[in-house]
Amino acid sequence: MAGNSIGEIFKVTTFGESHGLAVGAVIDGCPAGLEIDESFIQHQLDRRKPGQSVITTQRNESDTIHILSGVFEGKTLGTPICLLINNTDAKPQEYEAMKNIFRPSHADYTYETKYGIRDYRGGGRSSARVTAASVAAGAIAQLLLKQTGMHITAYVQQVGKIKLNKKYSEIDLNSVDSTLVRCPDEIVAQQMQEEILKTKAEGDSLGGIIHCVIKNVPVGLGEPVFDKLQADLAKAIFSINAVHGFEYGSGFAGSAMKGSEHNDAFEMKLGIPYTKSNFSGGIQGGISNGMDIYFSAAFKPTATISKEQSTINSEGEEVLLEAKGRHDPCVLPRAVPIVEAMTALVLADFYLRNKSSKT
Amino acid sequence: MAGNSIGEIFKVTTFGESHGLAVGAVIDGCPAGLEIDESFIQHQLDRRKPGQSVITTQRNESDTIHILSGVFEGKTLGTPICLLINNTDAKPQEYEAMKNIFRPSHADYTYETKYGIRDYRGGGRSSARVTAASVAAGAIAQLLLKQTGMHITAYVQQVGKIKLNKKYSEIDLNSVDSTLVRCPDEIVAQQMQEEILKTKAEGDSLGGIIHCVIKNVPVGLGEPVFDKLQADLAKAIFSINAVHGFEYGSGFAGSAMKGSEHNDAFEMKLGIPYTKSNFSGGIQGGISNGMDIYFSAAFKPTATISKEQSTINSEGEEVLLEAKGRHDPCVLPRAVPIVEAMTALVLADFYLRNKSSKT
Amino acid sequence: MAGNSIGEIFKVTTFGESHGLAVGAVIDGCPAGLEIDESFIQHQLDRRKPGQSVITTQRNESDTIHILSGVFEGKTLGTPICLLINNTDAKPQEYEAMKNIFRPSHADYTYETKYGIRDYRGGGRSSARVTAASVAAGAIAQLLLKQTGMHITAYVQQVGKIKLNKKYSEIDLNSVDSTLVRCPDEIVAQQMQEEILKTKAEGDSLGGIIHCVIKNVPVGLGEPVFDKLQADLAKAIFSINAVHGFEYGSGFAGSAMKGSEHNDAFEMKLGIPYTKSNFSGGIQGGISNGMDIYFSAAFKPTATISKEQSTINSEGEEVLLEAKGRHDPCVLPRAVPIVEAMTALVLADFYLRNKSSKT
Amino acid sequence: MAGNSIGEIFKVTTFGESHGLAVGAVIDGCPAGLEIDESFIQHQLDRRKPGQSVITTQRNESDTIHILSGVFEGKTLGTPICLLINNTDAKPQEYEAMKNIFRPSHADYTYETKYGIRDYRGGGRSSARVTAASVAAGAIAQLLLKQTGMHITAYVQQVGKIKLNKKYSEIDLNSVDSTLVRCPDEIVAQQMQEEILKTKAEGDSLGGIIHCVIKNVPVGLGEPVFDKLQADLAKAIFSINAVHGFEYGSGFAGSAMKGSEHNDAFEMKLGIPYTKSNFSGGIQGGISNGMDIYFSAAFKPTATISKEQSTINSEGEEVLLEAKGRHDPCVLPRAVPIVEAMTALVLADFYLRNKSSKT
Repeated sequence: MAGNSIGEIFKVTTFGESHGLAVGAVIDGCPAGLEIDESFIQHQLDRRKPGQSVITTQRNESDTIHILSGVFEGKTLGTPICLLINNTDAKPQEYEAMKNIFRPSHADYTYETKYGIRDYRGGGRSSARVTAASVAAGAIAQLLLKQTGMHITAYVQQVGKIKLNKKYSEIDLNSVDSTLVRCPDEIVAQQMQEEILKTKAEGDSLGGIIHCVIKNVPVGLGEPVFDKLQADLAKAIFSINAVHGFEYGSGFAGSAMKGSEHNDAFEMKLGIPYTKSNFSGGIQGGISNGMDIYFSAAFKPTATISKEQSTINSEGEEVLLEAKGRHDPCVLPRAVPIVEAMTALVLADFYLRNKSSKT
Repeated sequence: MAGNSIGEIFKVTTFGESHGLAVGAVIDGCPAGLEIDESFIQHQLDRRKPGQSVITTQRNESDTIHILSGVFEGKTLGTPICLLINNTDAKPQEYEAMKNIFRPSHADYTYETKYGIRDYRGGGRSSARVTAASVAAGAIAQLLLKQTGMHITAYVQQVGKIKLNKKYSEIDLNSVDSTLVRCPDEIVAQQMQEEILKTKAEGDSLGGIIHCVIKNVPVGLGEPVFDKLQADLAKAIFSINAVHGFEYGSGFAGSAMKGSEHNDAFEMKLGIPYTKSNFSGGIQGGISNGMDIYFSAAFKPTATISKEQSTINSEGEEVLLEAKGRHDPCVLPRAVPIVEAMTALVLADFYLRNKSSKT
Repeated sequence: MAGNSIGEIFKVTTFGESHGLAVGAVIDGCPAGLEIDESFIQHQLDRRKPGQSVITTQRNESDTIHILSGVFEGKTLGTPICLLINNTDAKPQEYEAMKNIFRPSHADYTYETKYGIRDYRGGGRSSARVTAASVAAGAIAQLLLKQTGMHITAYVQQVGKIKLNKKYSEIDLNSVDSTLVRCPDEIVAQQMQEEILKTKAEGDSLGGIIHCVIKNVPVGLGEPVFDKLQADLAKAIFSINAVHGFEYGSGFAGSAMKGSEHNDAFEMKLGIPYTKSNFSGGIQGGISNGMDIYFSAAFKPTATISKEQSTINSEGEEVLLEAKGRHDPCVLPRAVPIVEAMTALVLADFYLRNKSSKT
Repeated sequence: MAGNSIGEIFKVTTFGESHGLAVGAVIDGCPAGLEIDESFIQHQLDRRKPGQSVITTQRNESDTIHILSGVFEGKTLGTPICLLINNTDAKPQEYEAMKNIFRPSHADYTYETKYGIRDYRGGGRSSARVTAASVAAGAIAQLLLKQTGMHITAYVQQVGKIKLNKKYSEIDLNSVDSTLVRCPDEIVAQQMQEEILKTKAEGDSLGGIIHCVIKNVPVGLGEPVFDKLQADLAKAIFSINAVHGFEYGSGFAGSAMKGSEHNDAFEMKLGIPYTKSNFSGGIQGGISNGMDIYFSAAFKPTATISKEQSTINSEGEEVLLEAKGRHDPCVLPRAVPIVEAMTALVLADFYLRNKSSKT
């Protein structure tokens, strides 16, 4: 209801403000008996954490995971799992000066109006910092999916105007982390990195596109009508700060195709139905058909920039703003594990939901 | 859980198969005292119904609305509103021949695998016919929104490769229904209509793009983190059959912009905060900021075509398929009221959810 | 949210007012492939329907079940099942005189205040007539439970001050319907029936107690903390009009026992854990332990009586009321299938919820 | 779904095991702007905490509240409030010996069977320790209710066979805490205390009854059919460990009354509708009518006793058990704030839910 939960069976509620004591998540509905590899959770958090490279914000958080409940002797109990990540490098005083200023394209004005109060320090609850909790919860979802064989890989496909012009099938999906940008093509990644550093130097910011592929999805995930698999994937991805577009399968380009070109003909391979093409993106009628699921998410440029901007304050006066606080010139590299986490949360939930599809 | 409900407070559950007795919806959570203008509900159903023009399927349904409960002496009671639309021109025998065939890019195979059983007649629950129930429920949501001043307009922006190259602000939004295609530009609409008729004659189908604008949205609708307004709008739109892409505000194009170009500077107009540009699409931090909300939805071409296609049957044999049944060469004109309805369901729900944001 | 739904996976939403067009239910989440025996649904409705004997209200409804969706060739599709029961003997004009009167111990005043409007005809949504929808939905839950071996039997244990002083284990649970009162003891049932007829003649009404037993419950149904099995059973039973008390296992009497008397010692029988006594009522820590579950529900006397009563009208004036409309002098006999239905809805839901307790 | 959440708008999810690192709660949906008096939360926790007097368990926990999020400068932000209570006096090693033993009338056997794993230390998640989280969350609900004037008072009415034979209206509700037993009658409280100490010395335990009164409830709280106010109150109270019975208003005794005795005649007092009697317990048709709401909850005797008992172990062998661990001879005194907390959670939720009853 109040917007901080996701999932029906594998249900995650996150909490925490950017410069409060901690951010965290409670997972209710993770099946019992799942082995919890804490190092994997930490690994995903490390991929998201600030300060990891020259192209990210310099806020310095270890983002160490603490599991407060629900895990006993290394396994899930079937009871709620509370995951806690302390905020250690919060510098709220840096935001004091912006206390009464509504930053352009930020949530300051909307939070203030909706709630009549806001934690102005670094955006409070609207900060991308809260995605750390989603990444931690998503890592547990990924551990659950691993048991089923499902595997999710996201990578950076575009930064500003620099684009990787390859399909996911032409890429080594294991090499995503071999570049700082998380684009699995060394040359393009190098161009992107240079563009990020150049833009940062200008006090400006960049957006981009992340692509994501899910392999080995069993047939049958997704529910009719409103909870179609693509609908909940889209919702999950749009819940990530800065996402302005989502397309799966043939996407926007598919709307210019004809049915005879677009339809994915079925054939049999070793006794299993396959489709010759996959414009459906692995989903038909809202339900997975066993082919790869793939989608793209468009991110707007980071709203926080160092360049001077005109805006208003809470008294309704026009003011000039030179942003304080640490921030990313381009969030894409750090958003890769977030996209994977949100995807995992949806798939884990639909996997469990599917257990009661038949008598 | 089983995917046939949407909304938290204004909660809609739909039911019905394409060639069963009826389709319908139950709305639980519509506030009491709302005047119900049945003719408006019928009007929206008429805009969606089959057989309305030469460019739509020739299935002949009156789609007459029946309100079975929840309305008394013309006003809502605060109790569940059951809306029923009988299926009168169902011709299930036409589908008998396709009983064991999995049509390409349809839900036959995924439903059969997920449930172990399916109503093969016209796609059963996976048919776009079930959107009639959403349109009826959405009409009641629109009546609720009307009281608040909010107004939703969708229109066809692209059919196949023919595109209307205007922004919504350059268009007379009241003229959408003046063309059969529901594109508010007579010349472009004429081209679209010709393209549809030509494609129909070829036994093929088209996709396209619908654009939607919401005006007079109060500040504060949307919830933090997972239930951001754009996230639930995206989910609602992706729940419509054939949608493969969604973008709002600057969308995919915005990912190539710089922060300094993209940020929407605040200014005051008659004492009210406005933004000079609106790349945010009326939503900041997941919450409406009072500016227009606008988005685009990409539809793939209709999967049902008359051209011969190769596919498999339920025995896993390769077969040739020449589609039976009546269908639309392009769903876009009829999808306009569906997009409006899904949008209204989301806004009505968030409007009610916002009532407890403050003490 | 608005109170007309029950269940998480096996989710039922009911609709309809007492003197509107129909009452009904939508079940979303019934697994696919369940054989639907319509005659069983009708049988349960017949046990609840008015006019079935000299001791019930004389309203004459056939309460014929219509299945509008979700069932195909006799089996569930996994899609929503819409169940409809038309109101055929509605006599709303009989209620015209009571339009502005708040009947004592009825919901007239509370509905009017909460909603600012009410359907005054026979209590509208607050009427016990709406339990017909629950009984129909509960019958489908019972068909699902049958597959698992679970079996529910309710019977009348007390009417007014006449009480059956036997435990359920001393009773032939198959003989409940052998008396009009649904008390499985001919002599006590005869006394109850006479008391009901005598009270009816006086223009007065009676309450009573229903007892219910559930056999063959698998170990593991129920969830920790808030959704304990007894908690959801209690909620479901308290949702029945007129219920004022619920106890399971040792109940209120158990609060006067000592731990050493009350504890149910475990022992093994044919390799399966049993408890020597069953004061726990088959539930420990909120989760079924495989023993019989049993509970009692206390019903207040019917609020509608023919005797003259003083009350107020909507103008706040004191008035005298002589009730119009048909009503039961004692609802207990007809409440037996309602208790069974509500119990079945809870168990079916928890049965499905338990499918994801382990990896 | 997994049973650890309660509420629709004011939604609370608790987490934690008895001898894990911490127990806690996340509240999502508390309106923004509520002043948080931490000392009140602590006060309620202190009333529940172990070791508070000679008649409670000697486990020594400070139960200090930590608010990790959602509160800023003393006020709620409208974002999730995470409440944490560390476990400091956990002595898990004391339970090592009982690792493989299923204690009678405990949840050991049912948890082990349901989940295939359990935290055997002090009952893990099934321990009454987890109610600390509910009490903390309930305290915030009480702060919200305070703004509306609503007030909840619970007290001990019966311990074992010793009963306070007074109605709540004959009692000074402000004096509950003046006795260790929390029975607001010094003489009866003294008898209860002696009975508890005597029973403790015998290595045995006692149950009892708690009574609860809610004053100044606005008209209109509660929802039709399934979410009747009494239904959700019953559910909330049955979620408390050891509760075996619940009755409100006339309760079980009311089932022996006649309608003409039981009906609560309306009258006007200072322009406001009142009822002369209040057998309805302040609720009619599932919705509050403005009169006092009152109910009783029956608690079974504590399952943990020091007396030797026969039981089985996880290998299915019969064994003798002499309970280890610290425990209460009678939970009633400490259950008083728990009953108040659960009641507050329900009322706060229904209060917010009622905000959208009318347009």
